[in-house]
Amino acid sequence: MQTVSIIGAGNVAFHLTKAFIQNKVQVQQIYNRTLTKAEKIGKLNNIKYTNEISLLEKADIFILAVADKAIEEASLLIPFKDAMVVHVSGAMPLNTLKGNYRKGVFYPLQTFSVNRLLNYNEIPFLIEAEQANDEQILIDLAKQISDKAAVINSQQRAEIHLSAVWGCNFVNHLYYLAQQTADEAGVPFEYLLPLIKETANKINHLSPKEAQTGPARRVDKVTIEKHLSLIKDTFYKDIYNKLSNSIIKTYNNEL
Amino acid sequence: MQTVSIIGAGNVAFHLTKAFIQNKVQVQQIYNRTLTKAEKIGKLNNIKYTNEISLLEKADIFILAVADKAIEEASLLIPFKDAMVVHVSGAMPLNTLKGNYRKGVFYPLQTFSVNRLLNYNEIPFLIEAEQANDEQILIDLAKQISDKAAVINSQQRAEIHLSAVWGCNFVNHLYYLAQQTADEAGVPFEYLLPLIKETANKINHLSPKEAQTGPARRVDKVTIEKHLSLIKDTFYKDIYNKLSNSIIKTYNNEL
Repeated sequence: MQTVSIIGAGNVAFHLTKAFIQNKVQVQQIYNRTLTKAEKIGKLNNIKYTNEISLLEKADIFILAVADKAIEEASLLIPFKDAMVVHVSGAMPLNTLKGNYRKGVFYPLQTFSVNRLLNYNEIPFLIEAEQANDEQILIDLAKQISDKAAVINSQQRAEIHLSAVWGCNFVNHLYYLAQQTADEAGVPFEYLLPLIKETANKINHLSPKEAQTGPARRVDKVTIEKHLSLIKDTFYKDIYNKLSNSIIKTYNNEL
Repeated sequence: MQTVSIIGAGNVAFHLTKAFIQNKVQVQQIYNRTLTKAEKIGKLNNIKYTNEISLLEKADIFILAVADKAIEEASLLIPFKDAMVVHVSGAMPLNTLKGNYRKGVFYPLQTFSVNRLLNYNEIPFLIEAEQANDEQILIDLAKQISDKAAVINSQQRAEIHLSAVWGCNFVNHLYYLAQQTADEAGVPFEYLLPLIKETANKINHLSPKEAQTGPARRVDKVTIEKHLSLIKDTFYKDIYNKLSNSIIKTYNNEL
């Protein structure tokens, strides 16, 4: 079995370490520049930790669970030629890794916040490596955690990362706008939560195209105008307009 | 106990009837212009149904579960002066109801698709009536189904409906754009579903503002530019730009 070490101690490092330990993957060590953060994850999982790069032990796979902009710098820290080093970013190309070793990407398609309990076995791992053999090693590693793992290329990963921005980051911003609007109405945002949950659940059974409802779907211009009149900020008004028009455009040939 | 009759046989009528029957509310009758649709819901719930307005029986409360644009016409069908008649729309004012009877609004804040199993006790009912006594009757009716019911005025309802457009209708459209992007990448959309679920779940524990992640949140202009280069359609490119800028604007004073 491959041994794994984690570089970094943020949310992705926290969850990946926990997922590996839960699934009996041998985690050799966790390294982080700030010792207290490495210590926290190390102690939680009963694994070795350090902030001294000279104390970094050999492992089969080093996972750079660091911010996109820190990948290159972190990649230069690993001195083991016969190791594999992977980053976990959806956005960064494989060649962001600059050291002298085998290279790969181990991208978990999930949003990680530190205090969330996650079903790790549901997280898809999207894999890339320079060599087919390493792709297989990463697939095998991913499958120790999760039911879903697939090899994709850099172009596909960039597109899936974009897809995740639509389906996660931008969606969360719309939750923010929904909350601001509920606040203005003087209605608790928690009243929106069952609707938000059902909207997310529904697309497990219907395609988003089939699941679409609302004023723009039925080209209800009276309601759209009324909503626009309620939005004071011209910036948000513009977003409302654009999204409504985009929905109308989606179904345009079907009316 | 108040008796209820349902006018209409669409998704809202389907679910409200089921929710009432499950909770031992006496449903007198269901009326719909097309008999087969009324029959389907009637037989499922073992209640009377008709498409003949002359056979409409007296009930305490008539719920017009019809499309917004059909409310006014349907409201003219109810000949009982001492009944209360309510519509279920988030968007339409109370005075859309034109008959000679007591008037109200019984707005369930949820998205209804016919084949979905819903926890009716989670659905907030937002109530409005001309008279305080009728507000209380509608609150009592809602509380037979649900844990959450509140009286709000027309202005608040319009704003909450707008909030629901942000948090449900527009969110679903972003799911559609996420799916289109996954399709282009050749990656199954189901790979996005755990991320979408976690994004919706997370805001039960964090505010949307705290939960925000992604390139725009960290003002990662390289990734934003890369994503824009992947979006061929200028219309969608514009939406990506607007939403990114809106996120950046949200946190602007905090950088």
